Amino acid sequence: MAAQNWEAEAQICRDILDKSIQKQWVLPEDLLPSPEQTNVLDVPRKSGMLTETELQITETDATGLLEAMAKGTWTAEEVTIAFLKRATIGHQLLNYATEFMAEEALAQARALDAHFRSTGKIIGPLHGVPISTKEMVSFKDRITHTGYISRISNVAKEDALMVRTLRNAGAVFHVRTNLPQTCMHLDCDNNITGRTRNPHNVRLSPGGSSGGEGASIGFRCAALGIASDIGGSIRLPAAFCGSYGLRPTTLRTPWGGVGLAGEGQEAIRCTLGPITNSLRDVDLFMKAVLGGKPWEEETSLVPIPWKEVSPTKDFTVGILWDDLMGHPHPPIQRAMKTAVEKLKEAGIKTKDWAPYKHEHGMRIISDLFYPDGAETQISALKASGEPWLPLTKEAFLKARKMTIPETWELNLEREAYRTEHRLLMKEQGVDFILCPAYTGVAAEPHEARYFAYTAIWNTLDMPGVVFPTGLKVDPKLDAVETGYQPRSPQDEAEYRSYAPEKFVEAPIALQLVGNRFEDEETVAAAKIIEEIILA
Amino acid sequence: MAAQNWEAEAQICRDILDKSIQKQWVLPEDLLPSPEQTNVLDVPRKSGMLTETELQITETDATGLLEAMAKGTWTAEEVTIAFLKRATIGHQLLNYATEFMAEEALAQARALDAHFRSTGKIIGPLHGVPISTKEMVSFKDRITHTGYISRISNVAKEDALMVRTLRNAGAVFHVRTNLPQTCMHLDCDNNITGRTRNPHNVRLSPGGSSGGEGASIGFRCAALGIASDIGGSIRLPAAFCGSYGLRPTTLRTPWGGVGLAGEGQEAIRCTLGPITNSLRDVDLFMKAVLGGKPWEEETSLVPIPWKEVSPTKDFTVGILWDDLMGHPHPPIQRAMKTAVEKLKEAGIKTKDWAPYKHEHGMRIISDLFYPDGAETQISALKASGEPWLPLTKEAFLKARKMTIPETWELNLEREAYRTEHRLLMKEQGVDFILCPAYTGVAAEPHEARYFAYTAIWNTLDMPGVVFPTGLKVDPKLDAVETGYQPRSPQDEAEYRSYAPEKFVEAPIALQLVGNRFEDEETVAAAKIIEEIILA
Repeated sequence: MAAQNWEAEAQICRDILDKSIQKQWVLPEDLLPSPEQTNVLDVPRKSGMLTETELQITETDATGLLEAMAKGTWTAEEVTIAFLKRATIGHQLLNYATEFMAEEALAQARALDAHFRSTGKIIGPLHGVPISTKEMVSFKDRITHTGYISRISNVAKEDALMVRTLRNAGAVFHVRTNLPQTCMHLDCDNNITGRTRNPHNVRLSPGGSSGGEGASIGFRCAALGIASDIGGSIRLPAAFCGSYGLRPTTLRTPWGGVGLAGEGQEAIRCTLGPITNSLRDVDLFMKAVLGGKPWEEETSLVPIPWKEVSPTKDFTVGILWDDLMGHPHPPIQRAMKTAVEKLKEAGIKTKDWAPYKHEHGMRIISDLFYPDGAETQISALKASGEPWLPLTKEAFLKARKMTIPETWELNLEREAYRTEHRLLMKEQGVDFILCPAYTGVAAEPHEARYFAYTAIWNTLDMPGVVFPTGLKVDPKLDAVETGYQPRSPQDEAEYRSYAPEKFVEAPIALQLVGNRFEDEETVAAAKIIEEIILA
Repeated sequence: MAAQNWEAEAQICRDILDKSIQKQWVLPEDLLPSPEQTNVLDVPRKSGMLTETELQITETDATGLLEAMAKGTWTAEEVTIAFLKRATIGHQLLNYATEFMAEEALAQARALDAHFRSTGKIIGPLHGVPISTKEMVSFKDRITHTGYISRISNVAKEDALMVRTLRNAGAVFHVRTNLPQTCMHLDCDNNITGRTRNPHNVRLSPGGSSGGEGASIGFRCAALGIASDIGGSIRLPAAFCGSYGLRPTTLRTPWGGVGLAGEGQEAIRCTLGPITNSLRDVDLFMKAVLGGKPWEEETSLVPIPWKEVSPTKDFTVGILWDDLMGHPHPPIQRAMKTAVEKLKEAGIKTKDWAPYKHEHGMRIISDLFYPDGAETQISALKASGEPWLPLTKEAFLKARKMTIPETWELNLEREAYRTEHRLLMKEQGVDFILCPAYTGVAAEPHEARYFAYTAIWNTLDMPGVVFPTGLKVDPKLDAVETGYQPRSPQDEAEYRSYAPEKFVEAPIALQLVGNRFEDEETVAAAKIIEEIILA
């Protein structure tokens, strides 16, 4: 591809997006919020574009929708229309979509309704649930570019296994969502679709790399979102956008048909997982995915169905206040303190947890991301001549090129680190670790850099759930910490990035992590903790 | 290490071995078989060195021993002594041991007996079961050299996780066993301990790389053996020596503390598994290993306990007669035909199974073994200056050095191949595949080369069980096939390697493979098939 043509290539995708938008649901100019309005969550209601039922539908979580459809209260078609309408408005405000698939979604919804009318039964555990999907997840005959203009030529021959699995469960796919250039930022901007905004504050980043999904679920453009995480890409957007997100243990959810430069790199695996509007929806999603037995096709997956676990309060939560590399901002500190107080009051055992060799763990993951010196990613960028976004440079230019035996050495270090961490938790009797998901509540565009609160658990391959605490940034309570002495230039940059006025009303999320393959237990514990915190 | 010193280094291990042999159990010269006697299995009985009870003990499988010890019929100490005696004679005849651990074994057995006397109960699922262990599996304060003289300096800081897990289950470790130079031959010879012989015919190789374990279990020097397999190293020795062997799906059994040049290479994983004297002992072993929850320390393991599966004859066996690259020798053909006839008579569904892209699969595994051009292995050899055995040259000199992205490409090919194979089996309704484990029944020393009947299942990561058919080579029935037109030089070499007189009385084994992670189902099906074949 000639370098000068990159804009023309990008235009192909922009045209696809434009054509896919259902014009009848686009908000007229006069109903758009003023440029001063940063929180746009009230627009669907205030605009009058959605009926009361449509508002109710789109404000119901997937589990609730399913119950309503199983009872015949709502049809799959009306649910799909409601979400398509809200998704269209959401895109106007947040620029989070890469492509709508309205026709297919509606056709599928009608087929589901026909099935329900004739049998009186829903077709599967996701019957009629509208799902938004990160662009990297392939749909047959559609482009999968994963944030690279050079990959716009890549048209999928079939649906990703995740899509096929969930479609079999009754899911409806109505919109694909944005991701950053290269898909390796904590932000969500690229040369194709441009920058996605945060629904709680459009001046902020929705997080990344699954920023489109963060915006989609945060604005309730879909009932469930499919995102991916190799260093925090599910959890950060969920945290920034006030949603729930699970990065499952790797090798649980299907990966076939997902694009990502560096495919075949297995030392640190990327994994798909959900962004949702409730914790019970995380269960719903995972149960549906694993109920489809994706391991019967993708044999690298572990054949463990989503286990039912009985909730119990008899567990010990390790409290990781600070990883000693990136000092949490005042709102995060406040949420941690509030949570711990409430947990103690509720009789949950807590215990301070000191970060165990996080610097070491971050070196391992950073090196294993790009052991070829990021040549794969750099060539994919160079192939189109598209300009590099600032965070792209930061990601790749530090990449250390290694020999194959050096990567093996790192694999061994990673395994040893995982074992040590696991044994330490066992020794200390800690079942889960509660910690921030990020130094702050969100980041300004192009400023999301610190990923050690999420990526350390990717190094350790421990499942992590992010959930909103119900708290929001409050300048009165969350003043800049005076007298804090940063421990490094990185720590100082994180410290300086906070000012309460930038993040007013931003939701405050926390993260709970558990042992490898104890995804179900971690979600169950998060439910109990959430209930206590929200009480 | 100066090159000229390699003999001195080797001598360290030879001295350790010599000193560890219990001299009171060594067979006097006059009781040794004549040089003409090739099958030495009758020596323990004929020599008179073992009592009738000791013969009975050593001819009982582990499950039977456990039952006897649980009833108090035999003590752990007498069981251990019986096996130590037989193991000592076995070593004289077969040169299979690298080190005896008689004192520790006896001390442990006595402790188990004390426990049993005071509680009336066995301590765990392997109470008092004497286990032989391939040298690469570490024991605290002992050398782990894995077939490299340069690694004789490597003294383990702790027991391997497998050893700790089984010791907790009550196992007694009394002898460590030989492996080939570099641990990457299908044979069992090195510059340290020398060549191990096959108990059925001392002129033949016991197979490899777990040849010491093949000899140990074939001669009943131990009740169970711990071996490893990355391309056939459990299954070939089991087949050559008339024993049973399971190569489990990877990531089921613990690997921590096992030595192998190229540690950290994860594209094709080596895995530990058992060589046994019965199929029920495979269950016993796996249940004990997984019952120890090794994933609570080695977090890469999949937390699936050994499942109880109810035996059923309702399955379909694909029959892989010939992989079209290495034509099976007449005894193997006969065993396959006999098996299929009996299965059909017994009402088991069978179906011819054409090899699916085996050449492609073998290219993938061969490339992924040594993506650094075998530099790691070659440096480990060069570090001591020890001479290369012929099979070492053959293994490494073909190794293709790749870039890191080229290895990723191969990982993707491997995954695609696994998916295609799995879907094809599903489409054809085939649950298991019955096939040879090797072109022949065994190989002459330094002549075992053909590993595609086992390694293809490593590429696919499908569990494989090898079991004896009860048949033996019979020159009258197994004449050289006349008029066979070899399909390649490799095929011709395999064809020419057969002559019935070389393999007289060698046991004939077959292999059953199943889907990834369906280890339990595969063993259960093998039990049913074995029963039918032996009937």
